[in-house]
Amino acid sequence: MKPFADRLVDAIRAKSSRVVVGLDPRLESLPEEFQRGVRRSQERAGEMVNEWGGRIIDLVAPHAVAVKPQIAFYEMLGPYGVVAYYGLCRYARKKGLLVIGDVKRGDVPDTAKAYATAHLESFDCDAITVNPFLGSDSVAPFVEAAKKNDAGLFVLVKTSNPGSGDFQDLPVNGRPLYELVAERVAQWGAELVGKSGYSSVGAVVGATHPEQSAAIRRLLPKSFFLVPGYGAQGATAADVKRSFNDDKMGAVVTASRSVIFAHEKDRSAPWDKAVENAAAKMKADINAALGA
Amino acid sequence: MKPFADRLVDAIRAKSSRVVVGLDPRLESLPEEFQRGVRRSQERAGEMVNEWGGRIIDLVAPHAVAVKPQIAFYEMLGPYGVVAYYGLCRYARKKGLLVIGDVKRGDVPDTAKAYATAHLESFDCDAITVNPFLGSDSVAPFVEAAKKNDAGLFVLVKTSNPGSGDFQDLPVNGRPLYELVAERVAQWGAELVGKSGYSSVGAVVGATHPEQSAAIRRLLPKSFFLVPGYGAQGATAADVKRSFNDDKMGAVVTASRSVIFAHEKDRSAPWDKAVENAAAKMKADINAALGA
Repeated sequence: MKPFADRLVDAIRAKSSRVVVGLDPRLESLPEEFQRGVRRSQERAGEMVNEWGGRIIDLVAPHAVAVKPQIAFYEMLGPYGVVAYYGLCRYARKKGLLVIGDVKRGDVPDTAKAYATAHLESFDCDAITVNPFLGSDSVAPFVEAAKKNDAGLFVLVKTSNPGSGDFQDLPVNGRPLYELVAERVAQWGAELVGKSGYSSVGAVVGATHPEQSAAIRRLLPKSFFLVPGYGAQGATAADVKRSFNDDKMGAVVTASRSVIFAHEKDRSAPWDKAVENAAAKMKADINAALGA
Repeated sequence: MKPFADRLVDAIRAKSSRVVVGLDPRLESLPEEFQRGVRRSQERAGEMVNEWGGRIIDLVAPHAVAVKPQIAFYEMLGPYGVVAYYGLCRYARKKGLLVIGDVKRGDVPDTAKAYATAHLESFDCDAITVNPFLGSDSVAPFVEAAKKNDAGLFVLVKTSNPGSGDFQDLPVNGRPLYELVAERVAQWGAELVGKSGYSSVGAVVGATHPEQSAAIRRLLPKSFFLVPGYGAQGATAADVKRSFNDDKMGAVVTASRSVIFAHEKDRSAPWDKAVENAAAKMKADINAALGA
């Protein structure tokens, strides 16, 4: 198998898309046909989430390079939710989508190794998100597992939430902490650069801070950015443009609610048509901003 | 129900123990009677882990105030492992132990809310560990859920791994980052102080850095510390002493391998006796260092 970064570049070229669709199964937002009985039991909710997720995967597969299931919303349903998460990761892969497990794991080295095995081997993910707060030795087992499995990582550098600055922006010898994290990401990813010129160790860089994205882009020319914040969180295609390199590569943009629950805002079409339209529109919108 | 911090104080008094036993099911270390078939399937491994964990809980219940299952080792076994995690949390509670889910979750506010619901409601945990890297708004939903459920949090302030200094020790205006995190923890926990005088928002502070523990203790007089690093990671009872207040409260010490896999080093007794001895010895060792 090719390294993750090269597979991502291939997918972007093949589909002419830089879109990642977040699979966040918020029960209250599921279309009516998937609502039946979800309050009755977590088992039933897990089944419905699995059915709904399969439909979403079918709908977005032509327009997205990857799906990004957010495991928090599955864990809410207890073990039954994790069963649904497992099934959807498998199914998305079968449908030719890359799977980015949004798990934001991070722990001391021994435990990090267990997490890496869990999410890059036991679950069918092509890449996962990683929290670097515990330091280099806590990220190393993830890098190791990524190498072994031709998988990818997206390390949190600058997140999209309003409070992200509380720690990530703090000045360390005159430079914001996120820049120092970015420099570490470059080191961690140096030995995982594929033929595409990109490393399989990427970064999460929120689109809600375009100036900072541009600065991080300069520090991490070889890393793919996973860019949240587009759509429901307010960032536009012009904002996300700062996350890309001049080759129009180096970033993928993720949206959840604005695509998977598009029917909540666009009631002119059946829910599935609304989802498909939203994914296609997002793809075109980003490509237009890039001139791609 | 009483707030978590008050329940923890009650348990410490009732059992005269400050011990938390980490439940990390490393398959290769399980006693022989739980090894049968664990490589055959994750389903079988999950069953064995569940049986083994139940025995450990029975053995340590008289000597420990809480167990701390590390979810990474369960996630390694895929959904079957999460089923075992779920079952063990339930069983430990039934046996009168507090359950600290070592999940180190952290995410943007909406997702953090999902994680908080997952781990403080869907899973039977009395408290969980939380990663603060995403900032105050990412921790707020956990604090909210802790308040609603009389549950507790242990926020990562200074972890026990050698690389913890990479980011946690960085100087911010002349002070290490972990001190700034500690000050936030004090703010987050201010409204969750119980009748015991302790807040249900605690901190993870590794015993492997005793000087730093003492400094953090001063910044967080009302927080319970969850102290890893004792035993297999090398810290002694004298080291962990710095994490306690003068009232001999304010901290609980966690050990995993050195207790649950005591049979690997102590082959003079059957495995279950070795585990029980190790838990009892750890309890006595810490109490002696404190003069409690």
